[in-house]
Amino acid sequence: MKPCIVWQTDFGLSWGAVASMRGVCKQVDPTLECVDITHEIEPYNILAASRELIYVEPFWPKGTVFVSVVDPGVGTDRKASVALLSDGNYVVTPDNGTLTHVFYEVGVRQIREIDETVNRYPGTEQIAVFHGRDLFAYTAARLAAGVITFEEVGPDYPVEDIVLFRQELIRAKAENGKVTGFVSSASDPFGSIALNVLSVDFKKAGFAHGDRLQVRLAYQGEVYFDEEVLYAKSFGFVPVGAPILFDSSTNYVELGINQGSFRDTYHVREGQEYTFSISGPALISEKKKACISTETGL
Amino acid sequence: MKPCIVWQTDFGLSWGAVASMRGVCKQVDPTLECVDITHEIEPYNILAASRELIYVEPFWPKGTVFVSVVDPGVGTDRKASVALLSDGNYVVTPDNGTLTHVFYEVGVRQIREIDETVNRYPGTEQIAVFHGRDLFAYTAARLAAGVITFEEVGPDYPVEDIVLFRQELIRAKAENGKVTGFVSSASDPFGSIALNVLSVDFKKAGFAHGDRLQVRLAYQGEVYFDEEVLYAKSFGFVPVGAPILFDSSTNYVELGINQGSFRDTYHVREGQEYTFSISGPALISEKKKACISTETGL
Amino acid sequence: MKPCIVWQTDFGLSWGAVASMRGVCKQVDPTLECVDITHEIEPYNILAASRELIYVEPFWPKGTVFVSVVDPGVGTDRKASVALLSDGNYVVTPDNGTLTHVFYEVGVRQIREIDETVNRYPGTEQIAVFHGRDLFAYTAARLAAGVITFEEVGPDYPVEDIVLFRQELIRAKAENGKVTGFVSSASDPFGSIALNVLSVDFKKAGFAHGDRLQVRLAYQGEVYFDEEVLYAKSFGFVPVGAPILFDSSTNYVELGINQGSFRDTYHVREGQEYTFSISGPALISEKKKACISTETGL
Repeated sequence: MKPCIVWQTDFGLSWGAVASMRGVCKQVDPTLECVDITHEIEPYNILAASRELIYVEPFWPKGTVFVSVVDPGVGTDRKASVALLSDGNYVVTPDNGTLTHVFYEVGVRQIREIDETVNRYPGTEQIAVFHGRDLFAYTAARLAAGVITFEEVGPDYPVEDIVLFRQELIRAKAENGKVTGFVSSASDPFGSIALNVLSVDFKKAGFAHGDRLQVRLAYQGEVYFDEEVLYAKSFGFVPVGAPILFDSSTNYVELGINQGSFRDTYHVREGQEYTFSISGPALISEKKKACISTETGL
Repeated sequence: MKPCIVWQTDFGLSWGAVASMRGVCKQVDPTLECVDITHEIEPYNILAASRELIYVEPFWPKGTVFVSVVDPGVGTDRKASVALLSDGNYVVTPDNGTLTHVFYEVGVRQIREIDETVNRYPGTEQIAVFHGRDLFAYTAARLAAGVITFEEVGPDYPVEDIVLFRQELIRAKAENGKVTGFVSSASDPFGSIALNVLSVDFKKAGFAHGDRLQVRLAYQGEVYFDEEVLYAKSFGFVPVGAPILFDSSTNYVELGINQGSFRDTYHVREGQEYTFSISGPALISEKKKACISTETGL
Repeated sequence: MKPCIVWQTDFGLSWGAVASMRGVCKQVDPTLECVDITHEIEPYNILAASRELIYVEPFWPKGTVFVSVVDPGVGTDRKASVALLSDGNYVVTPDNGTLTHVFYEVGVRQIREIDETVNRYPGTEQIAVFHGRDLFAYTAARLAAGVITFEEVGPDYPVEDIVLFRQELIRAKAENGKVTGFVSSASDPFGSIALNVLSVDFKKAGFAHGDRLQVRLAYQGEVYFDEEVLYAKSFGFVPVGAPILFDSSTNYVELGINQGSFRDTYHVREGQEYTFSISGPALISEKKKACISTETGL
């Protein structure tokens, strides 16, 4: 069984760009299967591409060939590359920052630049604007089909040369009793917002399910939310309409409203201008604590 | 050939939720094929999920494993279940009302609660918010792949205990010469609105193609549309811009405008506040009838 | 290996229409694979359907069965047909103009009208509004699966009788030093707009990469853009925010803004009211030319 090719781009599905990439894969080997992560990454948002990839990558069988094309520099001298991750998966992508999350959280074993003289879809030498189809799809398909080995992708280059965002961007500052960072994603359709803090770091800061934490959100330094919020396992532990901090399925902490949209209620967007600080647990009397436990079922 | 896994959720396709569920299926068995109904069900709209399922279910080969995840109660004590329908298809879903349409129109032969101690994706025991991936995808894949039998899903419970919406919600009141109900869907991209009346009930009320019927629509009791409308086979039988009642492909009656949008023209939404009553056929002179026949080609 | 069925419609993916068509294909043959171009063609926009098809068709293996359903006349007497293209691909579609681009740019070898008495999904004889499922999906699947031959689709009719848009609509007027036409698409998510001129015709007009051309855009005759624009290989050759003419991956010329949206900046939409004329190259001094070369890297 050949590995799947798993895709994400900022191309959208309203036109034929994605289908023409798939056609190229089928020309290489009609038995290859393509599956989509999403084609609705915000145009040119490389950090979002990096983040979406880490969300999905761990849940696929090892050997899967991921293709991520968010490529504002297409046609310029950024490298077109294939990374072999430490867990055995591949990522075919422009080397422009997309590999940041997998680099820090999974590890990159080796990276190679695609040799255009060998791994370009024949007949497209004159087209400079669609590497998604002409380089990335074609190379991914040849790799997944076994037409070429990883070595035949092209020359390798040092893992240290991979273009990365600063690690602080993807992992918030967590110290004992306080975590500060920013909103890394507001694209969840239910309106929860993802903070750039791993659940494991949250716990290291001393926070535990059942704690009521002081959550402060600011936009360009201006505070627009400052409330005590329960950190719990799932929405069901707070009343409908109440805010909640919870461990999302992505291993990051999210802030939501039970059956409501935190994003829409507070007009939150993703990005470094949308900061948060979380401290606590707030000191509360034993009596109040007992009361909360009863209310929430914790 | 293993059965397909056919999906519907309210997760959207702008992030990686769906792709991580697919990855879990591929880990169970790389030969499994996943196909989407839609991931754009209105968030938390369980009745819409029930309705979309009946639209598609009859057209798939028997043995297909459907997965429907619209799950406002995830992480609480609603049951995670697998239903075996009377026609041999399976539905993997939270038992929260999603099974209403298939219960009344297809029949449920047996239902089992997923045994989390056996059928949970290993390593996700601490995550409470993503049963779509950790319980439903994993169980559906194991069932479709033949890793477990239907009996091994978990303990069965009485079909009478299935959580259902009232039958009146999905099947309008039809008596001789009059039908009353509400708008069950306004999501068709062409702007036709679906009424909660089956074509077969419409005919039982005495209506036939070629009839001009008096259609009255109200929102919270206030009438906003009150016109004579032709009941015909297809849009082409009325002039561009004219309203028409027709038998939709879902076996329900719809109200549309030829090459226009009924929904947008009259600002209709779905739900029980958007009621209709249809009576007639209106008495018309033989001369007028002849004239209509000529106009419409009936 | 059986050929893929490759789909485009204006049905959207928010409801079950597409999934019910796929179910019908799987009933015909569970080994068939369906792949989407898009289901977001503007409702009833047949010219857009024709244009999207030519974008994708050349990149699929020969023998692929395309299905295109943008069908404002469903249920009336327009023909439901299957075209065999000169390159060996098939297109299953209402014969209403969808075949225009493939007719002129690929060629149609033969066309046959679907015989409903044989090639209609059994049990749907009473439904007039969903040929996508009941005729097109069913016939495409039978053809792709080898259940029927092309001859068994139904009777052939003269290629000259195919319903076509005028060729001028898809190929702008190009003469020496000047090209005039209209905006054929503004649906690219990055905001570039496609002109109805092939790159090859652009070159015949005497234009070459590195030229600065005078581009004038008008809406209903009123000029809203009149600037000198570089014709180059890719976005990277102009500064961020600057306009650029380039050869798109579809073989047509597009007008964009580096890392910006030409469409949104100038409120351009597609259609014959949005005209362009391009002339030049503008006479410029040798000194200025040298300066440009240095700036742009050409």
